[in-house]
Amino acid sequence: MSQPLHGYRVVDFTHVLSGPIATHFLRLLGAEVIKIESAAGDTMRNYGGVQYADGMGPSFASVNAGKKSIVLDLKQQDDVAVAHRLIKDADVVMENFRPGVMDRLGLGYEACKAINPGIVFCSISGYGQHGAARHQPAIDQIIQSTSGMMSLSGEPGSAPTRVGFPAVDTYSGLLAAFAVVSALLQRTRDKQGQRVDVAMFDAALVMMISMVGPYLLTGKRPVKQGNRGYSMSPTADTFPTAAGHLTLGAVRQDQFERLCRVIGRTDLVGDPRFRDRASRFGHGDALQAEVRAALAHRTAAEWEALLNAEGVPAGAVRELPEALAQPHLDERGLLLALGAPDGPGLRILNAGFRYEHDGPGVDAVPPALGQHTAEILAQLGYTPEQITAFLDRRNRPA
Amino acid sequence: MSQPLHGYRVVDFTHVLSGPIATHFLRLLGAEVIKIESAAGDTMRNYGGVQYADGMGPSFASVNAGKKSIVLDLKQQDDVAVAHRLIKDADVVMENFRPGVMDRLGLGYEACKAINPGIVFCSISGYGQHGAARHQPAIDQIIQSTSGMMSLSGEPGSAPTRVGFPAVDTYSGLLAAFAVVSALLQRTRDKQGQRVDVAMFDAALVMMISMVGPYLLTGKRPVKQGNRGYSMSPTADTFPTAAGHLTLGAVRQDQFERLCRVIGRTDLVGDPRFRDRASRFGHGDALQAEVRAALAHRTAAEWEALLNAEGVPAGAVRELPEALAQPHLDERGLLLALGAPDGPGLRILNAGFRYEHDGPGVDAVPPALGQHTAEILAQLGYTPEQITAFLDRRNRPA
Repeated sequence: MSQPLHGYRVVDFTHVLSGPIATHFLRLLGAEVIKIESAAGDTMRNYGGVQYADGMGPSFASVNAGKKSIVLDLKQQDDVAVAHRLIKDADVVMENFRPGVMDRLGLGYEACKAINPGIVFCSISGYGQHGAARHQPAIDQIIQSTSGMMSLSGEPGSAPTRVGFPAVDTYSGLLAAFAVVSALLQRTRDKQGQRVDVAMFDAALVMMISMVGPYLLTGKRPVKQGNRGYSMSPTADTFPTAAGHLTLGAVRQDQFERLCRVIGRTDLVGDPRFRDRASRFGHGDALQAEVRAALAHRTAAEWEALLNAEGVPAGAVRELPEALAQPHLDERGLLLALGAPDGPGLRILNAGFRYEHDGPGVDAVPPALGQHTAEILAQLGYTPEQITAFLDRRNRPA
Repeated sequence: MSQPLHGYRVVDFTHVLSGPIATHFLRLLGAEVIKIESAAGDTMRNYGGVQYADGMGPSFASVNAGKKSIVLDLKQQDDVAVAHRLIKDADVVMENFRPGVMDRLGLGYEACKAINPGIVFCSISGYGQHGAARHQPAIDQIIQSTSGMMSLSGEPGSAPTRVGFPAVDTYSGLLAAFAVVSALLQRTRDKQGQRVDVAMFDAALVMMISMVGPYLLTGKRPVKQGNRGYSMSPTADTFPTAAGHLTLGAVRQDQFERLCRVIGRTDLVGDPRFRDRASRFGHGDALQAEVRAALAHRTAAEWEALLNAEGVPAGAVRELPEALAQPHLDERGLLLALGAPDGPGLRILNAGFRYEHDGPGVDAVPPALGQHTAEILAQLGYTPEQITAFLDRRNRPA
């Protein structure tokens, strides 16, 4: 038994975030990922202040563990020939250049398919490979703007508010990995390659499916709802406490009754204003004032424990460091510790799900730029002399 | 040739959002999805004001198209026996009850594996199937609170701000679909079933990988950065215009120079305060004031067109209705129109990626509650009399 993608090879032309996240998932599931880099390297290598090792920025180190790095100058025919030889024996090509760039380099889908009819060729772009918008440059925050995403977060009537992390990049990367693995499964039966076209704009809309779907059906314009949850229940919201904020998710009648019991306000259950779901919606402000007053007597952490013990959904609002310090993360194996005992250590996130056997994981650190150039050329049959000449010719890092 | 999951059967015990989204992806890729519902139906059926048909709320209609609905009372042995027979011939079981519930119903992983050793059994829960936090009730907004997500959006120093749509649900659903398809691919080789355990808390951290990764490496506490993009560049931010807001993503030097040209301020390029990336960071407020003044002369839509034509990443901030009205969505086939010409129509989102052949899609509407109960029982070999008795006995919708 082995990991799902054991024995699969991915030729990875991606850079920055969405593409490297996609191939990170494939690597975590056991694929061999050969990262093609220019002599300057993936932009993210030198990005962000603190560095891990070999000049690697933290964002780069987070999503490139265990990949192999080969430096190629894709404007040189010799180097494109190396890429072609890698693609010949590969299962997946992943790229996130602007649409048309791979074609111009002689590395587009048609060229790859001619070399390897079974190839699964996946592109990630802002607006897709075809159509009027394909040439528009796009990064996460642009798509957050044009897709409607910035119109959803924050208090009603507030200015456009970005989701404070590159959610479109991370969702698009996962979506691409999903599409690729599905195509590989498809290929086990029909023996055909596949062209996969992921547009970040489309992915953003799918990520917002629970807002987009109702709009498509009802025509009703979605509005910002602050911290109220999807239910819009007054007791599914975030409140201040004696220390820290607490989010309640008391949506059902039984949860509301248990909430009232825990906060010592069973009288609210009998109050005609709050008797049932509809009444509570009609008197939301009054109900929230009562709840807020009661919650002021204890800390968020205390309420969280008390409420969870009674089955009321509740969570203290944490920042990332406190979230990562939760003891159950160790039990879950979500954090992977990489690096030799004598070298600099590195902790990264695993894939976010567990298997019973042969599950996600990686035990190698991210590659230095061009770390595997010579090794990969040797595997392709280049002689030591040819490899030396190849490296010297372009004065590339080895 | 056929869709990737053609011929695969999913027995779907999920409800609300994360689970139904996971099986929605599997259905879009061609799987048969048999949705097990109680006589009351999936909570989301009656959720939200406007309804599609048969009493279906909009959120339900968005993520259940083409699934088959069978009503079972899982507290009755006869009905659990029906579930067992379905699982015997299935490839995937998906569930998102609280940990332990499926075991108590006689439908846990061990029971399913005994019936069908090749089964891929996937659970989605708040904090995972094992460990101290497993029994904590969790919904999207609770996980957004406890995972650190609410500490990232909004202006520096602002109160905790929820991502204004159930991002954790949608990401967890996609992650579960990815994990399941990967396990199915794994199974083609090792012939073994798999247990998949998706925790929404873990998924939330992975969705924030570009914040979590750097924190794990640097120990530096992430702070809210308003609408500035991941680059933190002063010209990667959202600005008011003569009409509407515009987001710029001018990160690189060449993009900055082209931005200055388009807004008619080439003088800024030569200004020593803004000469290079580091200088611009040091004089961010002054630079933003200049850019803001220039952008006031045209509308966001005008700037978007002018800047994109020059290769400067830029996007007008749209709300969802305007985003969905973009012409390239039709070219992309992102919207699926369902329903008979004589019945109520329904538009839903497709999977968010395209294939060259046999790609994602569905052409059937969401099922009425129990619409397929009799059909499925007949397929299992029940006689018409037995089916009638089964339906009558529990007075269930047929």
